[in-house]
Amino acid sequence: MTELAPPMVHPDPEAGARVAADDRAHVFHSWSAQAKIAPMPIAAASGSYFWDFEGKRYLDFASQLVNVNIGYQHPKLVAAIQEAAARQCTIAPSFADESRSEAARMIAERAPEGLEKVFFTNGGAEATENAMRMARLHTGRHKILTTYRSYHGATAGSILATGEPRRWASEPGAPGFVHFWGPYPFRSAFHSTSVEEECERALQHLRDTVMVEGPQTIAAVMLETVVGTNGILVPPDGYLAGVREICDEHGILYIADEVMAGFGRCGEWFAVDRWGVTPDLVCFAKGVNSGYVPLGGVILSEAVAATFAERPYPGGLTYSGHPLACASAVASMRIFEEEGILEHVRTMADTVIGPRLAQLAADHPSVGEARGLGMFWALDLVKDTTTHEALVPYNASGDAAAPMAELMAACKAEGLWPMTHFNRLHVVPPCTTSAEELTEGLDILDRALAVADRYVTG
Amino acid sequence: MTELAPPMVHPDPEAGARVAADDRAHVFHSWSAQAKIAPMPIAAASGSYFWDFEGKRYLDFASQLVNVNIGYQHPKLVAAIQEAAARQCTIAPSFADESRSEAARMIAERAPEGLEKVFFTNGGAEATENAMRMARLHTGRHKILTTYRSYHGATAGSILATGEPRRWASEPGAPGFVHFWGPYPFRSAFHSTSVEEECERALQHLRDTVMVEGPQTIAAVMLETVVGTNGILVPPDGYLAGVREICDEHGILYIADEVMAGFGRCGEWFAVDRWGVTPDLVCFAKGVNSGYVPLGGVILSEAVAATFAERPYPGGLTYSGHPLACASAVASMRIFEEEGILEHVRTMADTVIGPRLAQLAADHPSVGEARGLGMFWALDLVKDTTTHEALVPYNASGDAAAPMAELMAACKAEGLWPMTHFNRLHVVPPCTTSAEELTEGLDILDRALAVADRYVTG
Repeated sequence: MTELAPPMVHPDPEAGARVAADDRAHVFHSWSAQAKIAPMPIAAASGSYFWDFEGKRYLDFASQLVNVNIGYQHPKLVAAIQEAAARQCTIAPSFADESRSEAARMIAERAPEGLEKVFFTNGGAEATENAMRMARLHTGRHKILTTYRSYHGATAGSILATGEPRRWASEPGAPGFVHFWGPYPFRSAFHSTSVEEECERALQHLRDTVMVEGPQTIAAVMLETVVGTNGILVPPDGYLAGVREICDEHGILYIADEVMAGFGRCGEWFAVDRWGVTPDLVCFAKGVNSGYVPLGGVILSEAVAATFAERPYPGGLTYSGHPLACASAVASMRIFEEEGILEHVRTMADTVIGPRLAQLAADHPSVGEARGLGMFWALDLVKDTTTHEALVPYNASGDAAAPMAELMAACKAEGLWPMTHFNRLHVVPPCTTSAEELTEGLDILDRALAVADRYVTG
Repeated sequence: MTELAPPMVHPDPEAGARVAADDRAHVFHSWSAQAKIAPMPIAAASGSYFWDFEGKRYLDFASQLVNVNIGYQHPKLVAAIQEAAARQCTIAPSFADESRSEAARMIAERAPEGLEKVFFTNGGAEATENAMRMARLHTGRHKILTTYRSYHGATAGSILATGEPRRWASEPGAPGFVHFWGPYPFRSAFHSTSVEEECERALQHLRDTVMVEGPQTIAAVMLETVVGTNGILVPPDGYLAGVREICDEHGILYIADEVMAGFGRCGEWFAVDRWGVTPDLVCFAKGVNSGYVPLGGVILSEAVAATFAERPYPGGLTYSGHPLACASAVASMRIFEEEGILEHVRTMADTVIGPRLAQLAADHPSVGEARGLGMFWALDLVKDTTTHEALVPYNASGDAAAPMAELMAACKAEGLWPMTHFNRLHVVPPCTTSAEELTEGLDILDRALAVADRYVTG
């Protein structure tokens, strides 16, 4: 890892107040009740840490929105962006551009064999939108199957594919989106009693769903390879291969949404590499360049790409293959290799995070299960150790979510910035976080979990 | 204007061949039949020009996709991006960030009064998607009215709002999108014989459409303030005020899509400033930072923002308010003011482009009409000067579009990069293009139009 000198952050509360005042007057925030939020102004960020304007430092166990895989302000990546900005900021999609060509080649080289072409977007939502469009036009079929407990983006199509509450306000939208249940051994939809049984029953459930929906109406099954925000649900061995098989049997495309799971998060370039399966389409964003410049995309199999060889692909965007964004992806992939970041992620998972989270699960009654891989982990918190009743109800807010709010506050008080969702605390630090930093954060978490333990009633 | 030293572009066909080879092997292009294209590799760009790898220079009359309003590689804007990259590349939407706060404040200060809050996106499609969502939730109504001959983006919602052939492949999509006809005096849908009559009849048509669709079912009317790709259709004086009035009468929101028309293209910060109307929501992208970093957004009226004061806004994206993108918008707005670019655009329209295009219309039988404002102009080409039959049919391709392809080739041969769409040639250079450069390009266009004249039959 590149060693970063922490920036000198001098407290400057006046500047922070100015940033906050302009923010409250003029910035409309994602997913928020605007009058109920007080967004914390960030003064600086470096490596695994960020600072507020009071000079308080936070160790980031959220990687912002699970996107800063390379850590903050990586000096080589910043330098590459500066150099690329001097060369060529923007060129329309209809031309060929050096950074775009190189990024596409490098991504294709790292993707599973047979995935050779890259359609670039600005982010993850446009990636899933276009993957679904490609699948529909390639198959001539309409339906998209996705799982409950999934997130695929917030544009009109991607939000309907989403299998959680953020979809509700956009309904009714378009027909053709079908949700089914994926494997989740700790809270099985199939009453299974082992991981193997969960895998088998989840595949049977998908097979049955395909049967009753009509295979010839289904364009694609789209899955987060490892479900992200909705729980860090790692598929049992054999599940993805089973999905691939069901899809192949019926001429259905398999879309892997790796917007969160890809590019290092799981200790691989692509999370599917863990299980050796090859999707027809792979969606990416976030980790491809750690969000230093907005970028996403879809990697296409040769077969899907061939559908649009002679017939125009009916989709596009002004910044598809944006040179500055593509240059940052090229630099980021190189840095990952130079610094052995994928190996680092796997080592940290095996030697630090995995063992320590298992210990937390043993020590804290509120931790029903610790699960994950790479730098992608969740603690599934319960109020009842036997029934696994969640520490707070599904989609809870306000008083009902108080235990989670208190847990977050306990972490923040000690300088750890956690990510929580419903009844879970996710441990998703930058992929470059060192063993010492991880231990620092896990120590804080260990102490903070006492707050959650107090809510355990059985 | 900042004077730019043209970059030294040494021909390097080998490098160009490498870029092209990687492009063909790995880049999947927007709106294209992948086997039928040969994207030209761009070696460099500066000011109003770009160069291929043979060293050939093109004067850009397209501003790429009508987004490079500030010209290529503006040194102050490049420097600002480099400086911002060193400071802070990315911070999630839930925090407050200095560049984001400043960009939002500066945009709100320049927007029509009462539009105070900015929701940032990565580009135009996400802007219209979110504006439509805001309108639906604010009004509790479902339908969105847009015009035929419009383009609003290519995600699932924005493409259904689009009123041209790029929508067709995404149908059937969701219900609730209604298309009506806007004013277009040269090809009137209302058999009008004057601009005033066109305005009056177009408003009557909208009023009638609202009546038969049911005003209480309509969330919003969304209009490109000046229709862009579909013809540079400048609304007659009084039209937008009339739309505003119809909307107010029925509690319908008025969304101005200024992704292409805003931020300098029409010689104003916002095109609506020309007519003094205030929409409820304004969508922007492109010119806000000339696409140097992907950025778009929606500016909200206080009333619409208030709907989401206590109730969460159900939409968002990882890179909403991206610090690097916002910093480039701040710098771009400052440069526009320091260099008087809005005034320059108006002067060039009045003294160079407008008069010269009028002369082309007088001299060339193929030019049925020259129209536009600012740096936003179209030549509506005809094969029959009396009936106004278009030079090529609507949505023509292949042989049917040959006259347009020949016209483009004639321009390119002389080093002018034009923008064409259907039977039109658009003159949409960077807003910083000098009088000398404009004249250079218009001289080429004058000669090239001889090609189109040969197809005139009546």
